[in-house]
Amino acid sequence: MENCDLMKAHKVNVDLGARSYPIFIGHGILKNIDYENFIKSNKVVVITNQKVAPLYLDKMESILKKKEKEYFSIVIADGEEQKSLKTLEIIITKMLEKKVERTATILALGGGVIGDMAGFAAAIYQRGINFIQVPTTLLAHVDSSVGGKTAVNHSLGKNMIGAFHQPKCVVIDIETLDSLPRRDLIAGFAEIIKYGCITDVNFFEWLELNVENLKRKSKDHMVYAIKKSCEIKAKIVNEDEKEKGKRAILNFGHTFGHAIETSLGYGVWLHGEAIGCGMIMASLLSYKLGLINYKKFTRIKNLIEKFELPIEFPNLQIDEFIELMSNDKKVKNNLIYYVLLEDIGKSNLLALEKSRVKVLVDEMTR
Amino acid sequence: MENCDLMKAHKVNVDLGARSYPIFIGHGILKNIDYENFIKSNKVVVITNQKVAPLYLDKMESILKKKEKEYFSIVIADGEEQKSLKTLEIIITKMLEKKVERTATILALGGGVIGDMAGFAAAIYQRGINFIQVPTTLLAHVDSSVGGKTAVNHSLGKNMIGAFHQPKCVVIDIETLDSLPRRDLIAGFAEIIKYGCITDVNFFEWLELNVENLKRKSKDHMVYAIKKSCEIKAKIVNEDEKEKGKRAILNFGHTFGHAIETSLGYGVWLHGEAIGCGMIMASLLSYKLGLINYKKFTRIKNLIEKFELPIEFPNLQIDEFIELMSNDKKVKNNLIYYVLLEDIGKSNLLALEKSRVKVLVDEMTR
Repeated sequence: MENCDLMKAHKVNVDLGARSYPIFIGHGILKNIDYENFIKSNKVVVITNQKVAPLYLDKMESILKKKEKEYFSIVIADGEEQKSLKTLEIIITKMLEKKVERTATILALGGGVIGDMAGFAAAIYQRGINFIQVPTTLLAHVDSSVGGKTAVNHSLGKNMIGAFHQPKCVVIDIETLDSLPRRDLIAGFAEIIKYGCITDVNFFEWLELNVENLKRKSKDHMVYAIKKSCEIKAKIVNEDEKEKGKRAILNFGHTFGHAIETSLGYGVWLHGEAIGCGMIMASLLSYKLGLINYKKFTRIKNLIEKFELPIEFPNLQIDEFIELMSNDKKVKNNLIYYVLLEDIGKSNLLALEKSRVKVLVDEMTR
Repeated sequence: MENCDLMKAHKVNVDLGARSYPIFIGHGILKNIDYENFIKSNKVVVITNQKVAPLYLDKMESILKKKEKEYFSIVIADGEEQKSLKTLEIIITKMLEKKVERTATILALGGGVIGDMAGFAAAIYQRGINFIQVPTTLLAHVDSSVGGKTAVNHSLGKNMIGAFHQPKCVVIDIETLDSLPRRDLIAGFAEIIKYGCITDVNFFEWLELNVENLKRKSKDHMVYAIKKSCEIKAKIVNEDEKEKGKRAILNFGHTFGHAIETSLGYGVWLHGEAIGCGMIMASLLSYKLGLINYKKFTRIKNLIEKFELPIEFPNLQIDEFIELMSNDKKVKNNLIYYVLLEDIGKSNLLALEKSRVKVLVDEMTR
């Protein structure tokens, strides 16, 4: 493991030509960033929620004040159900009322819901303005804040309305994890495990060895795991920004996971919990199709279990479950696409016919 | 004037690297286009309105049928007030209900409202799908269908929510002008005059000589005027796709025009009518600031008048009018930006302080 100097911010670059940007990672780094380099005009709109605001809004505002930025904050209610066109309209209306100009910058302060929605607001406000991600949950640190996917949900499916819009920078201060509820911390580990599964067996092994260090939030270990996750995601995004090919592997566990979330109702399981269970289903499917052996499936399942993520499939009505997977964005020509494993650290996109999926899922969940 | 072979489609290329696309212009060309080249999957969603549907939907659908495309159509109500987040949500919901996949193509069949909204739906549906513009009004032929600006309105301003999303091709069949109400035809000429004013004195002079030919919709003259307009717009968009600089000159007459539209209420004046009057105000402002002489101002005003566009400023409350202009996207740091003329065929972006604008507009409208 690299030696982490916690006083300085580690940097991961996302290389996308004119849309390149840095991700800063470290402990207590929020105040050390040269925001001037990333906020081109003086006006900043901070978007956050009622859960995050009491913890970090004062701090963020005082940093902006010190940097002589003009700012105002929009605080929305907490929860996945806020990630809607309706809340988006509220945000845009407030910005128009305050006469926010096209040169302004949105600062997304919060978890994935805030990041996705504030990013999408930035993508479509007056046809696009700049934004910065300051993610405050582990899940947002390693997933939603990296890669420029922004969206809101529709009652017929998650992230159905959105855009690709890259931030100007991402500031991951792991001090934010101090106040993160344990259940959210655990959920965040699901996406970290994902990176090991899809591309990096060494990282997977490192995770197997460091479950306890991570669960007790050892700073060194957290910074390493987050940096590694961001590097893997950045590399994949570099190769395929708009998900025309390779980027799809980031959806490992997500076709199942999204269907679990929708089926149970948003918020019953956390996103990371659904993805954890979704990864077990995708790994089991990989085994059922003869792509990996039972031992490898067990290693994945065990790692997910050691992180205390739910490993039992929720009690779902199969037909509805299959129907929900057919509604996913990953569906083309009536085939359902899955990211499956050929090994731990090696993944591929595979299309399965709906009828076949039904038989397999039926077996798996019996 | 070029000799127009009406049997074939004239072609204008919009060069934007990977996002380049052709504009086809001609009479009766709708059925002659090789749609296969621009529709990558088999599924097409036609978006149109209740006014356009009875005129062209059967025709469009039978063309798609002949090309063996799978299609379904969404017909919305007519009118600028439809260009809203609410209608957008209706469109997206219908597409999700029909399980439209990311490989599908939206075909926008209609005027500017349909083009802007269907284009924006394409920009944000599952983070972006392909679309084709089939504009059916003169205004859409020469303006909104070219350049990739898509948007819906907000009660606090026009086009405040949108994206840059380039179509795969634009098909301008001037046969659609046969059924266009005269008032809409006339309104369309405003944007054509604009192109002469901002970049091309020769085209301006050609328009002065051919007012009557255009008003009687001579096919040769219409194709020439539309092609020339698309060429000028394409050239400007090539240089500045996302309106960071030069593209702003396309807004000649629009800062005033948008304020007129909002102030009178959308639809009281047609967009082209407001822009016609807005161009007179912008030209008068150019004269007041000593940029052009009175004779040039008069030539512009006369041309607009000869096309039977309204030339009298509507009766507006000045303070409210200034306030509306301050709400425009072209506002930065409390200055109001105007595209002003330095000559017929030469334009520039100029910032004026609000207080100064007030004095000048007060003089102009007295």
